[in-house]
Amino acid sequence: MILLFTDYGAADLYVGQMRAVICLHAPGVDVIDLLHTAPNFNIRASAHLLAALAPSFQLGSVCLAVVDPGVGSKRDTVVMLADEKWYVGPDNGLLSVVAARAKKLEVWRISWKPENLSRTFHGRDLFSPIAAWIEKGEFPHGKLVDTVSLQVQLDAGDLAEIVYIDHYGNALTGLRADKISSAARVRIGATELAYAPIFAEMAPDKPFWHGNSIGLVEIAVNSGSAAQMLALKVGDAVRVMA
Amino acid sequence: MILLFTDYGAADLYVGQMRAVICLHAPGVDVIDLLHTAPNFNIRASAHLLAALAPSFQLGSVCLAVVDPGVGSKRDTVVMLADEKWYVGPDNGLLSVVAARAKKLEVWRISWKPENLSRTFHGRDLFSPIAAWIEKGEFPHGKLVDTVSLQVQLDAGDLAEIVYIDHYGNALTGLRADKISSAARVRIGATELAYAPIFAEMAPDKPFWHGNSIGLVEIAVNSGSAAQMLALKVGDAVRVMA
Amino acid sequence: MILLFTDYGAADLYVGQMRAVICLHAPGVDVIDLLHTAPNFNIRASAHLLAALAPSFQLGSVCLAVVDPGVGSKRDTVVMLADEKWYVGPDNGLLSVVAARAKKLEVWRISWKPENLSRTFHGRDLFSPIAAWIEKGEFPHGKLVDTVSLQVQLDAGDLAEIVYIDHYGNALTGLRADKISSAARVRIGATELAYAPIFAEMAPDKPFWHGNSIGLVEIAVNSGSAAQMLALKVGDAVRVMA
Repeated sequence: MILLFTDYGAADLYVGQMRAVICLHAPGVDVIDLLHTAPNFNIRASAHLLAALAPSFQLGSVCLAVVDPGVGSKRDTVVMLADEKWYVGPDNGLLSVVAARAKKLEVWRISWKPENLSRTFHGRDLFSPIAAWIEKGEFPHGKLVDTVSLQVQLDAGDLAEIVYIDHYGNALTGLRADKISSAARVRIGATELAYAPIFAEMAPDKPFWHGNSIGLVEIAVNSGSAAQMLALKVGDAVRVMA
Repeated sequence: MILLFTDYGAADLYVGQMRAVICLHAPGVDVIDLLHTAPNFNIRASAHLLAALAPSFQLGSVCLAVVDPGVGSKRDTVVMLADEKWYVGPDNGLLSVVAARAKKLEVWRISWKPENLSRTFHGRDLFSPIAAWIEKGEFPHGKLVDTVSLQVQLDAGDLAEIVYIDHYGNALTGLRADKISSAARVRIGATELAYAPIFAEMAPDKPFWHGNSIGLVEIAVNSGSAAQMLALKVGDAVRVMA
Repeated sequence: MILLFTDYGAADLYVGQMRAVICLHAPGVDVIDLLHTAPNFNIRASAHLLAALAPSFQLGSVCLAVVDPGVGSKRDTVVMLADEKWYVGPDNGLLSVVAARAKKLEVWRISWKPENLSRTFHGRDLFSPIAAWIEKGEFPHGKLVDTVSLQVQLDAGDLAEIVYIDHYGNALTGLRADKISSAARVRIGATELAYAPIFAEMAPDKPFWHGNSIGLVEIAVNSGSAAQMLALKVGDAVRVMA
């Protein structure tokens, strides 16, 4: 199973081109669009989202991850094996939160270059063939160089910020819910939010926080948009009041 | 073939997680994103849209349907076999229009709970494995309880409202076109619309109604947006003037 | 491999219905969503986008292409074999830029009609079965009529207009970059843009042009939105200052 995690957009012409390359190298393989609306150019928020999703990945699956404002510049590109799950992507911090939380970790630098490497679309030209080969069980020997660790490593502690706003208007933070007591209040701007376990139990005009389905603290409103009600956006700081 | 019909959003991180679970339980199976922008939290409009799509489903296919503002609360979850097509979803009315129009109907309540059932994402944790097993031909005996009928049943007559607005700006109603004469006029707000069979025959500034490709009365404009021109939104009432 | 290129929208209920029909006729076949946000009703811009994507299509693949404001009216529908790649779509100009640039070309008019042909969704009812049969290697003899050329042929020279704006705000033009010197400046409105090879080398407030990953001249900003900064939209004219 290949899982795609990018900021390429869910409605643009980039994901299809990647999938066509994967399909050329590994026809019939299961490819899943995990997320293509990772916050544009925002490596830090994306790294924390990816780390929240990673525990659910099947052992042996391959995650192709790209949030890469520096494409075409000097950053390295890597293959990473973390807790028996594969990752392919840029060495710009995006994979570093997954790496820091992994119990077992191996990293290789990709030395291979395809014949026609575009300057701006390494997701298609470089990462997609590598991901396809790994998924097929053909480890790309000779195309990788052993390495010890990622070059760019972000803080892997929790990120007290909004990292994603979904189409309902729920605001996902980079805070892991199991680190916080349900008695805690979450502060965003001037608003203090109490915990509620289930949407349907709350009044529709009453924002609250809960631990969401990928284990993150999320700000929500029953049958409404917390983002609209509280004017939230990606990057807004949150604070936990223990 | 598994058909997904949800309000989970076409660009968020929910559909991919469901697909990963389906793929884990039934690798290589065909999974189709039928619609992920069913009107948010709007069970009634979604139920009528689903019922309009259902006649085209292949016999034996499995439709995983979720519009579920009450997730985590007391509502039941069900498997339904209607006219030899399978449905998996919440017993909150969403499946009830399909059920009421079916000639043959069987319903089971899902008694099974997975080990890690999140409070807010039963689509991933509960419905996806069930759908995968049925698609593979492994009817989940022991995980279901025989039942007679759905607990929540909406009016299955036509719904004289806008149930969906597409990206062109066409407004789909819950009225079935074959119940209406083409001599009828459709009234929306203060505007009365005549029937036209083909977009290309109408002037670009002249809204009209037609029977769309899933058999519903639809308000449209040739090469333009009816929704914008007439300021339409989901839930707006329409009236047929016979 | 079947590649879908349409203006049906990435979030609406049309693509799923097409995929369900393809899956019915050719289960398990790889189907790729290349683009579903081709500019609505804009045949000319879409024809140039499609022609820019076509060189990357795998030999033998089938592209189902629909931008068809005239659906239901008198235009023909065709199967085209251009440089060993298949195309299925309306004969309204959409395929004509690909055709004009092909070295080898064969065209057939589709004479077949399915039993239930809707007036407004030939993509589902007519093109999807044909594409599925070709992909399976069953050329639809008896359903096609030999023909010599497309009825509607657009100018296949470069199109000096914005043809697409992606979610980052990059503006793709219909100009092929390999026909232009990197010393050239590109003028849009009152703004003159210099060439830059790599996003990361430019200041974030400095729009520039570059040759993008499908070979088109593109107007971009490093980590920002050129469309927003310069108020660009599809159809805006551009000029090359040699």
